[in-house]
Amino acid sequence: RDQSDAKDGSKSLYVVQAERQEQAERSVLISCHSRTNEKKFLKDLSKHGDIKKHFFYESYGVYAVVEFSSQESVASLLEGATIPAVSHESMVPFKSRLLSLRNLNSLDSSNQQAGQQRQPQTTPPINELIQRLSRDESIDHQITHLTESYQLTEENIRLRFLVCSLLNDIAAAYFPECTIKPFGSSVNGFGKLGCDLDMFLDLDGISGRNVKMPKSGLFLEYQMKRASSERAVTQSILSVIGECVDQFGPGCVGVQKILNARCPLVRFAHQPSGFQCDLTANNRVAMKSTELLYLYGELDPRVRCLVFTIRCWARTHGVTSSIPGAWITNFSLTVMVVFFLQRRNPPIIPTLDQLRELAGPADKSVIEGNDCTFVSDFSKIPLHSNTATLEQLLCEFFDFYASFPFSKMSINIRKGKEQNKPEVTPLHIQNPFETSLNVSKNVNNSQLDRFVALCQESTWLLQQRENNTPRRHTGGNTPGPWGLVQLLMPLQVAGVKGRKG
Amino acid sequence: RDQSDAKDGSKSLYVVQAERQEQAERSVLISCHSRTNEKKFLKDLSKHGDIKKHFFYESYGVYAVVEFSSQESVASLLEGATIPAVSHESMVPFKSRLLSLRNLNSLDSSNQQAGQQRQPQTTPPINELIQRLSRDESIDHQITHLTESYQLTEENIRLRFLVCSLLNDIAAAYFPECTIKPFGSSVNGFGKLGCDLDMFLDLDGISGRNVKMPKSGLFLEYQMKRASSERAVTQSILSVIGECVDQFGPGCVGVQKILNARCPLVRFAHQPSGFQCDLTANNRVAMKSTELLYLYGELDPRVRCLVFTIRCWARTHGVTSSIPGAWITNFSLTVMVVFFLQRRNPPIIPTLDQLRELAGPADKSVIEGNDCTFVSDFSKIPLHSNTATLEQLLCEFFDFYASFPFSKMSINIRKGKEQNKPEVTPLHIQNPFETSLNVSKNVNNSQLDRFVALCQESTWLLQQRENNTPRRHTGGNTPGPWGLVQLLMPLQVAGVKGRKG
Ligand SMILES: Nc1nc2c(ncn2[C@@H]2O[C@H](COP(=O)(O)OP(=O)(O)OP(=O)(O)O)[C@@H](O)[C@H]2O)c(=O)[nH]1
Ligand SMILES: Nc1nc2c(ncn2[C@@H]2O[C@H](COP(=O)(O)OP(=O)(O)OP(=O)(O)O)[C@@H](O)[C@H]2O)c(=O)[nH]1
Ligand SMILES: [Mg+2]
Ligand SMILES: [Mg+2]
Repeated sequence: RDQSDAKDGSKSLYVVQAERQEQAERSVLISCHSRTNEKKFLKDLSKHGDIKKHFFYESYGVYAVVEFSSQESVASLLEGATIPAVSHESMVPFKSRLLSLRNLNSLDSSNQQAGQQRQPQTTPPINELIQRLSRDESIDHQITHLTESYQLTEENIRLRFLVCSLLNDIAAAYFPECTIKPFGSSVNGFGKLGCDLDMFLDLDGISGRNVKMPKSGLFLEYQMKRASSERAVTQSILSVIGECVDQFGPGCVGVQKILNARCPLVRFAHQPSGFQCDLTANNRVAMKSTELLYLYGELDPRVRCLVFTIRCWARTHGVTSSIPGAWITNFSLTVMVVFFLQRRNPPIIPTLDQLRELAGPADKSVIEGNDCTFVSDFSKIPLHSNTATLEQLLCEFFDFYASFPFSKMSINIRKGKEQNKPEVTPLHIQNPFETSLNVSKNVNNSQLDRFVALCQESTWLLQQRENNTPRRHTGGNTPGPWGLVQLLMPLQVAGVKGRKG
Repeated sequence: RDQSDAKDGSKSLYVVQAERQEQAERSVLISCHSRTNEKKFLKDLSKHGDIKKHFFYESYGVYAVVEFSSQESVASLLEGATIPAVSHESMVPFKSRLLSLRNLNSLDSSNQQAGQQRQPQTTPPINELIQRLSRDESIDHQITHLTESYQLTEENIRLRFLVCSLLNDIAAAYFPECTIKPFGSSVNGFGKLGCDLDMFLDLDGISGRNVKMPKSGLFLEYQMKRASSERAVTQSILSVIGECVDQFGPGCVGVQKILNARCPLVRFAHQPSGFQCDLTANNRVAMKSTELLYLYGELDPRVRCLVFTIRCWARTHGVTSSIPGAWITNFSLTVMVVFFLQRRNPPIIPTLDQLRELAGPADKSVIEGNDCTFVSDFSKIPLHSNTATLEQLLCEFFDFYASFPFSKMSINIRKGKEQNKPEVTPLHIQNPFETSLNVSKNVNNSQLDRFVALCQESTWLLQQRENNTPRRHTGGNTPGPWGLVQLLMPLQVAGVKGRKG
């Protein structure tokens, strides 16, 4: 398969989501013991039906995700499950697909070794990664290697959809037609193991029969609570779901209802998966940006590799952070990589306007007055032949932003060309769908200056010939830092906290 | 049918509740117009299936309760209902069996008269009742007449079960095995039209498969949130349901979560029914007292008549009140009437200990260490032949409590005999099931004194010959006050606010 085949075979995120969701509905999450015997475990579970896939992982204990071939097997499994019988403790009797294994007989006491192989759900420590990258034979290899070490695994993606599905059961109790969908880096192709799980409650499915008022005969409406605005409705719904997650949700801790934010949300930690979760509602524009980033990532494998590398570089040097502030966000940074790739000659990926031109009638989408239309059929997208290597692109990226006219120009992936800045602000990146907004309006001058300085130093490092090839081994030890590794080591300007700060 | 037949044909409250509950599940509540044409309305609704019963009533607008023969008809009705389409307002899209009629064609504009007959859901005003009672021919008639005017109607009882059922839908979303049941005066036989609706969430149905831990094979438990106590569990559950009623419940207003009370509860007003609602959880002892009072009311028709008359008398003179305080409660007053009837010679109703003796194995009930066992098969209960008239009993009641040794003795319906007071308190009425508790510990001396003084004056009034027969009509007008009516007019001691107050 060449690259174009890969792209043409790609499914749109919409299709991928539906498949993953259905898969999650046939799955359960089971807390096990470290010595649970895998064979016995599977044999016993198979009594409820055919198991399609399973894996073990560790997160505050050992857990198993088990996917059955049919939902009836899940029902049968739950049917046979018991309420915990503890004498000195009380339990909120809310039943879910999160279970615990209680049979000592499923432990393998004869075997000193762990009872199962566990899939890692976190990235390797940076030092370990650096050692491994040092042994690679080219910068291209290093970039691919980093991407493969960081990106979400099949198992982690399944776990994310399963957590959504568990939460969906809570929401669907009141809104049977709703679905909770992951968005952001969990599904846009740029998620790093350990990234947060962004979810939104999609209430669009809710409607009565879509009929005109009948001429004669009875016309009945559901009587519903009125609210002052759509925002108030969202707040009501999130308030109840938040309360429920807090009071009933097994393993859900630190629940915060942040209902007065611009985009109201419920935040909590889901201990059995280890995910930090953010639940919003009716956040359809964010879903569209997620679909767009996914599409760009699917069009050319170099997109993902560059994004992972730049994200990792930015995090190492404190350009991005896990806490909110005047920093550049991962989302802004990704848009900057997309823009850079649109500006290649020939362009590696098309502009958003070009994607909109290619859209069919079914792709039309207007959300709250914003045109969010773009093509969903990847095979319709023509690509230019640009054979730049990852190493070249990485170097060009740093060079591009080392000298970008940030003070005058705005980054615009819709047009694929910088535009005059509409407002005075250090960094202006046009929101691709809500075009009057700046996705990086939080960034201050000092943070931008730091980013530019780091780009300059990184360009310089990559242009030094001796940095671009593996260092000679010294007596079988790990070779010294070179290539990408050098970019991930402390840089000279890393200490510079910004001239104005 | 003589009295004993009536009693033997009685169903236990448990059976009645189950029937009413099932009936409510086949019913919907529809907001109509005052000019909705009943015939058209029924014809249109019948498209969804056979209608077993329906009625209209008024409460902040006209409503209809419609009971279908089968639940599928309700499903079909809801299937065809639409989401309200209002341009300037937002709605919380929670669907329930509370609907609104929207078709102008079902109005009968040609007819100036109201489109349907509406069942009253409140008692007649006291002045109107007094006028009517004055025209009765005996005190016995007056008592029966008052009882019939005040007691819950068939329609009102259906409406109460329907409101429980609507609330049950909300709770069952999370706890499918739970039921919300009415208790207190809504179902104990002593409810007055307009009394509050006491409900409790029964979580006892929730359990896993009740098996011993299997010797081999898998043993799975639901993972559940731990709480520090059963009380904390109740608070969690009521907190979520309260939040849901508040945010989603159409027509539910003034929601208060009173979770730190001795018995945590959620209080709200349900506008479509006009009921003030109190929802508690796992309140099984209160359900047992409700069953007991129901049983006493079913054993002999004089029980209900006396309770209604005494309750009305007490309310008129401010012995009881709708707000909490040092007053005697309706519940205490009812227990006092029960006790008085146990103390007749021969007794009109048996003691609780006797009812416990008659219990079969299936009647055994121990709740939180309290023996709540008593017979459920009414036909097993032998009654003495006591032919006292209502007039005699009413007079004896006042006489009994006018001279009761409240300072030394406790009222005890378990033994059917006064007992030495276990503690210093003005009024001591032993809680029939939690026997270490006093149901009237809130009552102060001044309130008790007032009650005694009113009993004395009422005895005196009823003993005056000229008060016991209708006054002569004066020119076709309503006769002057006599009999029961005199007892409901301001009394001399009514102004006395208690000697110690
Ligand atoms: N329009 C707009 N959307 C944003 C912005 N920030 C985040 N989003 C959207 O919300 C999604 C989730 O936000 P984040 O969790 O902060 O970012 P993420 O892409 O998931 O990346 P990480 O969580 O950092 O891995 C993003 O993918 C975007 O679709 C913003 O400033 N503007
Ligand atoms: N054990 C005990 N149960 C009580 C007490 N007060 C109320 N109850 C129970 O709770 C039920 C509901 O209480 P209320 O609503 O105050 O009384 P009610 O019997 O419904 O009478 P209304 O005044 O018509 O509402 C009663 O029927 C009793 O079963 C009390 O002080 N002790
Ligand atoms: Mg995220
Ligand atoms: Mg009550």
